[in-house]
Amino acid sequence: MEKIAIFPGSFDPITCGHKSIILRAIPLFDKIIVAIGKNALKSTYFDLDTRKKMIEATFADHKTVVIQSYTGLTIDFCKQVNAQFLLRGLRTSADFEFERSIGQINKQMNPDVETVFLLTQPEHTALNSSIVRDILRHKGNVDQFVPKEILPFLK
Amino acid sequence: MEKIAIFPGSFDPITCGHKSIILRAIPLFDKIIVAIGKNALKSTYFDLDTRKKMIEATFADHKTVVIQSYTGLTIDFCKQVNAQFLLRGLRTSADFEFERSIGQINKQMNPDVETVFLLTQPEHTALNSSIVRDILRHKGNVDQFVPKEILPFLK
Amino acid sequence: MEKIAIFPGSFDPITCGHKSIILRAIPLFDKIIVAIGKNALKSTYFDLDTRKKMIEATFADHKTVVIQSYTGLTIDFCKQVNAQFLLRGLRTSADFEFERSIGQINKQMNPDVETVFLLTQPEHTALNSSIVRDILRHKGNVDQFVPKEILPFLK
Amino acid sequence: MEKIAIFPGSFDPITCGHKSIILRAIPLFDKIIVAIGKNALKSTYFDLDTRKKMIEATFADHKTVVIQSYTGLTIDFCKQVNAQFLLRGLRTSADFEFERSIGQINKQMNPDVETVFLLTQPEHTALNSSIVRDILRHKGNVDQFVPKEILPFLK
Amino acid sequence: MEKIAIFPGSFDPITCGHKSIILRAIPLFDKIIVAIGKNALKSTYFDLDTRKKMIEATFADHKTVVIQSYTGLTIDFCKQVNAQFLLRGLRTSADFEFERSIGQINKQMNPDVETVFLLTQPEHTALNSSIVRDILRHKGNVDQFVPKEILPFLK
Amino acid sequence: MEKIAIFPGSFDPITCGHKSIILRAIPLFDKIIVAIGKNALKSTYFDLDTRKKMIEATFADHKTVVIQSYTGLTIDFCKQVNAQFLLRGLRTSADFEFERSIGQINKQMNPDVETVFLLTQPEHTALNSSIVRDILRHKGNVDQFVPKEILPFLK
Repeated sequence: MEKIAIFPGSFDPITCGHKSIILRAIPLFDKIIVAIGKNALKSTYFDLDTRKKMIEATFADHKTVVIQSYTGLTIDFCKQVNAQFLLRGLRTSADFEFERSIGQINKQMNPDVETVFLLTQPEHTALNSSIVRDILRHKGNVDQFVPKEILPFLK
Repeated sequence: MEKIAIFPGSFDPITCGHKSIILRAIPLFDKIIVAIGKNALKSTYFDLDTRKKMIEATFADHKTVVIQSYTGLTIDFCKQVNAQFLLRGLRTSADFEFERSIGQINKQMNPDVETVFLLTQPEHTALNSSIVRDILRHKGNVDQFVPKEILPFLK
Repeated sequence: MEKIAIFPGSFDPITCGHKSIILRAIPLFDKIIVAIGKNALKSTYFDLDTRKKMIEATFADHKTVVIQSYTGLTIDFCKQVNAQFLLRGLRTSADFEFERSIGQINKQMNPDVETVFLLTQPEHTALNSSIVRDILRHKGNVDQFVPKEILPFLK
Repeated sequence: MEKIAIFPGSFDPITCGHKSIILRAIPLFDKIIVAIGKNALKSTYFDLDTRKKMIEATFADHKTVVIQSYTGLTIDFCKQVNAQFLLRGLRTSADFEFERSIGQINKQMNPDVETVFLLTQPEHTALNSSIVRDILRHKGNVDQFVPKEILPFLK
Repeated sequence: MEKIAIFPGSFDPITCGHKSIILRAIPLFDKIIVAIGKNALKSTYFDLDTRKKMIEATFADHKTVVIQSYTGLTIDFCKQVNAQFLLRGLRTSADFEFERSIGQINKQMNPDVETVFLLTQPEHTALNSSIVRDILRHKGNVDQFVPKEILPFLK
Repeated sequence: MEKIAIFPGSFDPITCGHKSIILRAIPLFDKIIVAIGKNALKSTYFDLDTRKKMIEATFADHKTVVIQSYTGLTIDFCKQVNAQFLLRGLRTSADFEFERSIGQINKQMNPDVETVFLLTQPEHTALNSSIVRDILRHKGNVDQFVPKEILPFLK
């Protein structure tokens, strides 16, 4: 059976932390779906189309990484695309407590989907999309925090 | 390339928590080596041979799970058996902090080995081998905490 | 002196986690007041009247459990109803840090009120009202997360 | 039914933190058994008899507080003395993770015993018996860390 | 070289916790700039001018403490005022995780600025401006939570 | 008044993490005493003299860093050498909980000594002397974990 994982998030924008997790997970799965959650209630810094293009640019050379957007519960999207695995990165123990809750609820709702965690690399522990947006808003330099492939989208 | 993971520990004795992590990891890997670390300095409750037999009994029906013992650094044992993955279970945030340290040091010593984490199931969060040994020492009942396959070894 | 505890929250809606804490606290107190905090600034998923009825249905058979709503500081409501105890459930260490802050501030404002904590059961650790609302919004099934007594209110 | 709680520990020696938890729990229970766990494997700073006398001196004026020593599992001692409650203090989130594990295992072994937690007061958060012993070993002054009733035992 | 630290925050309003950190940091630095971050998107309980006056009143007798407001990234403001140090208080481990992220990102953006942490005193661990505002909103008494110098501003 | 800090530890051996904290603290203090705690009860991997020489080699070019050994309580040693500050590095939230306890007890025993914390750099978060000793014991390579100045001592 093909091993399919989804890596859900809003990717507003994708960071070096996301990129590193996905690259290291490639050997584990036959297909990784980077799944952009659409939330009608939350406004984003980058529109959906730009976020999609940034992720595509980042993984242009990696054929097993595909990008999709979805609405509704993440666990329902897993069933829809036949994903048996949810891929997540862990940075801090606050992260862990949050992810454990989500992971356990998902397991109760659909026992066939397993959440698999990789560690964020030490130099990305402090990083998240919200910090990147904050720096962008103040015209700061984010070059060391995002994949070089998305820099053209930030000009 | 064959996907090989090692699941290291002292398994003194194997618990329901260990068993559940390994069973859920089977679909991810081609081979899982349950690796019993030998530590000349630490005395154990069960001898190495008994611990090995208890694990064998637990996974008798699962051909991709094999048992080996090792000395030295875990990360060196990975190279020796061509394992690209270290499998670990996460129970609490204290666990996570500890595992993150070990995982990051291992990554610095051998970047080719990735640590992969699964969540312990809620009902096993509180469980570990040391608690089981403590109950055994006081002649308490551990039936709900260990795999039923190892009960014959506890009489 | 009669031992009165209040169990404050917004109960939007009451979950299996809340129910379990209250049931296990019944032997400790002569009266438990489930206290629904009214917050003019926050909109809720269920209106106050429905939340009240759901809690009443859940504890119909338990005479020492009563339901009241209140505005203002929780610690002031304690004085108003002569409650010497604040009852809280603890799920995670993030929970604990938060509850400790609130508990210590309350203690400084009114040393006569003691906060008493019970542990959430392992299978409810991941559960909270916000997750239940999220599943309801996406038309998911919450039967295993809420008291069976409130299911009629969710149709 | 009489409400009986046990407050287990080694009390080597009793600290201001222990005293404060017990005093504040008195209104909750009909009887609190301060239960000194005897562990043949661990050597203590004060012998059992001295520890007992120090606790007796501390609660001389509180008739519902009694002192007993025990061997074996704490949860078994609860049954032996008909205690339905285990009383524990919570200081830090590390404490909480540890106590949650013990509490959940105890609950699985005997569902009739409920663990009840009170918060340590802010000024005692950092305090434990091991720190007190460390200061005593170095001839430091522990007057602000232990009940004044036990000072005669420290000369 | 003059040692300059900034202590950033919104101080809405300044609390006893803030005051204690700053007073204890005075011996470490030649100048401490209490830096009020202006955020066009967030509305505050007290206006900027009142917050400034409250801090001035609190440190009227301390010549090395000065007050300034700023917009933009905190790390950029450091460069602007030649501050080599960022001063922060630590209360809980949740605090720590958050501060570590901010501190590490700041270090990556400007390696010349070092973040220096002092511990909040035990009796202020639970305290923050948001709790003070909440009590004020409900007409409660905050006298024990804020510097006595700011009480005139609260009438 | 001269600003003196002590940086206490057993330094068995000194790591890159220790070195980084001390180097970054140099601009804060007039003198930093690296204070090696002697504990008659604990055996060490390196003897006191070697540990001292390794630290001396590491800071040969830094005149304000001096090395001393001490017995007894750290807080008493501060008084003895007129240190007003205790310098500590923070790596994880487990670290923080531990350091907060020690810092608060020290503050209660001697309010004139302030504990000052710096953040460990991300790439050293996982590192400690015990891990270095473990690798040395198994003949592994520790070059990336210790100051290059101490490598001659490890042959």
